[in-house]
Parts: sequence; structure tokens; C-alpha cells
Amino acid sequence: MNPSNWRAYLVTQESLSEGRSTLEIVRSAIEGGIDVVQLREKETSARSRYELGLELRELTADADVDLIVNDRVDIARAIDADGVHVGQTDLPVTVARELLGPEAVIGCSASTVEEAVEAEADGADYLGVGSVYGTTSKNVPADEEGIGPERIAAIADAVSIPIVGIGGITADNAGPVAEAGAAGVAVVSDITAADDPTAATEELVSAVETAKVLEDAEDTER
Amino acid sequence: MNPSNWRAYLVTQESLSEGRSTLEIVRSAIEGGIDVVQLREKETSARSRYELGLELRELTADADVDLIVNDRVDIARAIDADGVHVGQTDLPVTVARELLGPEAVIGCSASTVEEAVEAEADGADYLGVGSVYGTTSKNVPADEEGIGPERIAAIADAVSIPIVGIGGITADNAGPVAEAGAAGVAVVSDITAADDPTAATEELVSAVETAKVLEDAEDTER
Repeated sequence: MNPSNWRAYLVTQESLSEGRSTLEIVRSAIEGGIDVVQLREKETSARSRYELGLELRELTADADVDLIVNDRVDIARAIDADGVHVGQTDLPVTVARELLGPEAVIGCSASTVEEAVEAEADGADYLGVGSVYGTTSKNVPADEEGIGPERIAAIADAVSIPIVGIGGITADNAGPVAEAGAAGVAVVSDITAADDPTAATEELVSAVETAKVLEDAEDTER
Repeated sequence: MNPSNWRAYLVTQESLSEGRSTLEIVRSAIEGGIDVVQLREKETSARSRYELGLELRELTADADVDLIVNDRVDIARAIDADGVHVGQTDLPVTVARELLGPEAVIGCSASTVEEAVEAEADGADYLGVGSVYGTTSKNVPADEEGIGPERIAAIADAVSIPIVGIGGITADNAGPVAEAGAAGVAVVSDITAADDPTAATEELVSAVETAKVLEDAEDTER
């Protein structure tokens, strides 16, 4: 349960899974080596998220995979998740910490250096930084420009907690995100909408690991 | 903090307040004798609800008015509300109880005798029963028929926890709801959209009290 070790991070959204259940997608992602799963499913009721959360908790605990709940601190506690991920319009990190205690993993979304520094000061354990390449998963125009690996690098310079890049990331473009200093990458569609979610996860993990090996080698040369 | 004593119950929804803030509406309702306020504001972010909740907590605590949070157990805890109100698609009553402890007031929505009996068995402290007369506050067709005071009476017969009727209630039609066995009535528009929310609250409280006096008199005659 150390976000520094997260290479691939799956954010669930059943509406993008092309008829497969979130449980099925998560099971495939676990086979492919996913490190952490975030229960999001914004469109569904709290009751549905709670019930799905109980199932995901069992599945992830068996596989030693971390489970994070988006936004809802109460659901995180109710299903005994490892932590919660809050956005800039969710409950503040400080409040989530008060409710969940010191052991919980609390992540916070940040898209600027200022937000990142504030989240770290408030006690966040990791940052979700994006949208790196723009995204079509949320209701964002597909052509909206992402912040790019450059911003990841700027934020990595400014904070000491691990960063997970998010937004439009695939195995093909994950490398520069890891090279810029992200511990890992988070995806929705790349795994959820993949023909073979297990293979997609494997490729993502491999892309991040390869980039880190290259980065380490460069660091050694310097 | 005894739901049996709630006569008038305001559910907040700023979008219906015709330009006034929820804080302003609640302040007026307190002047008019409101007994309990439920922070709902479904359309706004968790952060906004949390921040408004802190302000409402101060206001209601000063006036010795109860404060309940809709759906979000985490926000209820974070703002030190008196309790939470959950619907049939929110977190289960049992889970809310586990998270909030024995002292919290937990309400549950019910529209049938079956749901009411289950909620009581699960440990709910009161029931929100409706829609009594249909409603325009949520996205329900205005002409949808309500369950009527008859269903309130059937539920009051089946459970021993207090009932608050909700849905299309005004001072003009609150009487039959209280006579049917409801401890009080909950409204959104009747107070929130009123020209004079203080007067609207006074009239609502008065209608419920008058009906209870009549009911008690009838009970004595029998």
C-alpha cells in the first residue's frame, strides 16, 4: 500500500466497458498486473457503488491490489478500502484525513503546481495529475489539450509525494509520463474499453517499467 | 433532537429559492419556527455542500434547530450534523449507523409499508414518507399522483418510529398528513420558493399543530 509502487492504476467506469461488468474488467486487469483500482462509477447510486465496492474489496484483497474510492469517504470506510481519491470540488484532503485516520491513503487531483503543493501540504499521499493528454472518458471535449508530460515534470520537481498521471494515457504514450517523474499512470478507457483488458494492462505496466529503467539509467549517467 | 417533536422540516434546494441563498432561506425558516433542516443541494459539489454545511451547522446550533444531511454520511460527520437522511438508493441504514454511531439521527425514505418496516428494523430513527401529494421539486412529473394521507396512516399503523410526510405539502394540505399520523411535514418549495419564507414556515407549523390538537381531541372522544 505504497503509492510509490503503483505503476498502473485503473479507474472504473462501467459505461465504457462495452457490456462487460466492472468486476469482469477488474478481474482481467488484476491478471494483467494492475497495482491499484479506483472505484469511481460516478453515474451510479451510492447504494450500487457500495455493493460493487464490497465485491471489489474481496477481489482486490485476495490479489493484494490496493482499492481506492473516488470522492466518497463514507463508502471508502464502509467497504474498508485502502483510501479515497478527492478532486478539487470534493471534500478537502484535511477533512478526508480527519475522517479516515493516518493509515488511509488519500489521493488528490491536481492539474497545476499550486494545487499540487497545496495538496501535499494538506497531507495527501499521492497526486492524480492530469489531464496529461486530454481525455474522452469524462465530459471533456475530445480535442481539449492536455497539460503534457512537461507539467508532470514541473509538479514532480515541486512536491515529494508520488504522482500518477491521468488522461488519455495508453501504452503508446505512457513512457514520457513516467520519464517526466510520475510513479505510474492511471487509465479508464485504455483498459476498460480494450478488447483484451488483461493484455492492455500488461502493456501499460511494461511501458511504465521500461520508461523507469531508461530514466534510472539516465540518472546514473548524469 | 427527537424526531417525534419535528413539526416542520425544511429540505434545502437553492435552485428553487429565486435568487436567495440557502443560508438566507434557512435563516427565515428558523425565524418562522422550523424544527429541522436537511442539507440536500443535490446539484452542487461535495465541497460546496460541505462549506454550506459548516455555515448551516453554526446557524442551526445557535437556534437549537436540528441539522440532517442528505445521503452523504461523510459530510454529516465532517460538519457535525445531527444525522443523515438516506433514500432507497443511498447507503443502507445499517451502514450509516455503523459509520455514525448510536447517537446519530438516521432517517430513511419510504413510500410503501414494506420499505417502512424494513427501515425501522434496520434501525432508522424516523421515516420520510412520500411523495404524499406528488411534487415538482424533484424531476417527477407534476401530475404524478401522490400516495396520499391514506398511505401515511397505513405506515403509521405498521411502525412505531416517527413519520415525516413529504411531497407537494403546503399549509393548506398539511392537516390531513398530520391527522393521518405523521409527526410533521417536510417541504422544499413551500418555504424555499415562498415570497415570505418566515410566514410560510409559521403557517406550516400552525397547520400541523392545529391538526394534532384535533387528532388528540378525536382520540380522547373515542
